[in-house]
Amino acid sequence: MTGGPGAREVRNSEGGIRSVIVAVGDELLLGRTVDTNGAWLAAQLSELGVPVVRKATVGDDRDAIRDALHHGLEDAAVVVFSGGLGPTEDDRTRDAVASALGLELQLDPEVLEALTERYRKRGYDILPPANRKQAMVPRGAVALANPAGTAPGLVLRTGGKLVALLPGVPRELKALFPAVADHVRQHLGDDLHPVHVATLHTTGIPESVLAPRVEEVMAGAPPEVEVAFLPDLTGVDVRLTVRDRSAREASAALEAARRALWPVVEQYLVPDESGDAARAVLSRLGERRWTLGLAESCTGGLVAKRLTDVPGSSAVLRGGVVAYANEAKTGLLGVDDVLIRSQGAVSEAVARAMARGAARVFESQCGIGITGVAGPGGGTDEKPVGTVFLAVAVPGGEVAEHHVFPGDREAVRVRAAQAALALLLRTARAS
Amino acid sequence: MTGGPGAREVRNSEGGIRSVIVAVGDELLLGRTVDTNGAWLAAQLSELGVPVVRKATVGDDRDAIRDALHHGLEDAAVVVFSGGLGPTEDDRTRDAVASALGLELQLDPEVLEALTERYRKRGYDILPPANRKQAMVPRGAVALANPAGTAPGLVLRTGGKLVALLPGVPRELKALFPAVADHVRQHLGDDLHPVHVATLHTTGIPESVLAPRVEEVMAGAPPEVEVAFLPDLTGVDVRLTVRDRSAREASAALEAARRALWPVVEQYLVPDESGDAARAVLSRLGERRWTLGLAESCTGGLVAKRLTDVPGSSAVLRGGVVAYANEAKTGLLGVDDVLIRSQGAVSEAVARAMARGAARVFESQCGIGITGVAGPGGGTDEKPVGTVFLAVAVPGGEVAEHHVFPGDREAVRVRAAQAALALLLRTARAS
Repeated sequence: MTGGPGAREVRNSEGGIRSVIVAVGDELLLGRTVDTNGAWLAAQLSELGVPVVRKATVGDDRDAIRDALHHGLEDAAVVVFSGGLGPTEDDRTRDAVASALGLELQLDPEVLEALTERYRKRGYDILPPANRKQAMVPRGAVALANPAGTAPGLVLRTGGKLVALLPGVPRELKALFPAVADHVRQHLGDDLHPVHVATLHTTGIPESVLAPRVEEVMAGAPPEVEVAFLPDLTGVDVRLTVRDRSAREASAALEAARRALWPVVEQYLVPDESGDAARAVLSRLGERRWTLGLAESCTGGLVAKRLTDVPGSSAVLRGGVVAYANEAKTGLLGVDDVLIRSQGAVSEAVARAMARGAARVFESQCGIGITGVAGPGGGTDEKPVGTVFLAVAVPGGEVAEHHVFPGDREAVRVRAAQAALALLLRTARAS
Repeated sequence: MTGGPGAREVRNSEGGIRSVIVAVGDELLLGRTVDTNGAWLAAQLSELGVPVVRKATVGDDRDAIRDALHHGLEDAAVVVFSGGLGPTEDDRTRDAVASALGLELQLDPEVLEALTERYRKRGYDILPPANRKQAMVPRGAVALANPAGTAPGLVLRTGGKLVALLPGVPRELKALFPAVADHVRQHLGDDLHPVHVATLHTTGIPESVLAPRVEEVMAGAPPEVEVAFLPDLTGVDVRLTVRDRSAREASAALEAARRALWPVVEQYLVPDESGDAARAVLSRLGERRWTLGLAESCTGGLVAKRLTDVPGSSAVLRGGVVAYANEAKTGLLGVDDVLIRSQGAVSEAVARAMARGAARVFESQCGIGITGVAGPGGGTDEKPVGTVFLAVAVPGGEVAEHHVFPGDREAVRVRAAQAALALLLRTARAS
């Protein structure tokens, strides 16, 4: 397991150690649950300097868990499991890993006390019997107290490698990971090789147009910088990666690449580290002390949702109207009924009137108006599904755009919300 | 690869064949992207009768892709890849799989023509050179036309097994999967053993309370029915699974289990197959020909977004107001300013006034009002972060609830939106 015949290299060419993530749960193999833990853990492990070489997902099955553990230990110095630590019968990770490593399970009095106390606070006199197994800890393992739930995390050392078991509930996993990171640093600190990443978040340019332009520039950039393009419905992220260099070298190479790419990407950039156009809008408007009101039809509250996802958004966002019915457009937003009848509810004139109306009713400097056909029904020859009119009102100006977005209802809504935020971003910069 | 020494069993104990999913992409290992394809593919393959025994995620790396292919063919009769078929340099799945199977890549004139035509429509006279490699097809492979993007899907047969390559863009993958399913049915049809699943979607009861009640009932249910609990922020799904039985036997066993569980779960059920409380609200209100108006503060448009995610929601949802600023609560919704000053904006009285106001301004039979402290800031001793007041107005009645939801901003918002929909669902049933 730790270097015998057939064992593969757990280090990369520069001696950096690597990790494997294993998600456990029948629900993942049946497709009932999307595994968001994997991406979160991968980002944490990469930053920590233990790049992930593989993620695996297996069912609530002892043999599969054992195989995944052995396969992981062949390729990596750190193996992180998520899921299967709960109180129910189908939670088998603890047992399977302990037995695969030949470790007995022992009742941990501290964990038992913490569990009992947790249930006492919730009004239970005794610990439900099923939860008792959550206090069983493999011999030699360290139990990590779970501030957010019942299942403690577990860290085991085996032949110079680390195996961590974390609960599958995302907020519990997130609460426990820092303790795992401490163990990794403590035991493998000399071998950590952080990956250095810089991301340029673009919106409004397709990958097929952006990629050749970027690749042309990168032909002349430092060769240690790798480029990847990550498209989604809101735009294309250009990810620059440097591996196995010191922090100073990596930072210089990334900065050089970023400067070289600037002329190509600048007009499409989302100027926020997160790449979130909503955050960028809030900070740009915040700097100018402008407030915002929304009038959404086909996006149905998605722009409001994206903005209010951000803590502190209330300093900029005064509110929004989801105006699905025409009466809401006329009554609440003051859109002229004659305009709706002459131009149609899905029209540039109505989008502009909605943007102005939103700014007026919320007494804000800026307004966004969105009207369109998200589908699947409602399309016509003249205004097919995907037709969206966007308008933005800012002090001293007003702009509108007409799009026909591809994709299904969800895609049209996501693209329309993103385009509206991007339009406000550009308009607020220019004005 | 197909039964030699060391090959493991690709069939389960009943002779059914199994599948492995491999997601390819550095972005997945760096945690920049959440893999939603895996869950979707897993659900499709399970239904098709090719249960997924493992999912693997590897980087844009030839060796890793080759190893994942070989490992997959050891354990499964169907291996489905997603990602790495794009036009850029870091797209390596096509090449790696072809070379691992010893298949030459050949230019496919039909694929080339389809690509050229696609770009012609978008205003490009010639195909961008990078896209030309997307027309290269491994010898013997079937190319699947991609209606939603540039990368064709590929299906290969090797030693009685099937390998499918699909693009990583979710809507392209979804558009191409039915053709893969056809190939699976055509070549492996006799060995398909569909998994039969019934799910009871509950909301408003914690897993630790629900699970023992369900397990007690299931002790007397048909033994071939497996039970799993899938908790998330919106509730707990109870999943009942029957494997390796005929459709008729499975259906009878599932129905018996469902009937036995009914008294335990009935009051917590979300009465829609999707488990989506928004869909359930729309159909219940639709049956009664009631319309709905929303007034959201801390959920910031999330309830509106969830309802308008559903096609056809405009028949029920008239509109909504995201009333972040107090002025929006008073001005747009008619909430009494004195009430806000005496009780606070986060109070039961204001939630009730918002629900009534929403019904009034949108001229709808029903209204929802939500006000609370989503955090991270804004909490007090009396009204800590997580405090949410919900109110629902329906013809002839009005109800309110007070919650203190655990978790971060996002968790509070998701729980509050779900609780509001569940409250309306119960109230609309009872009234």
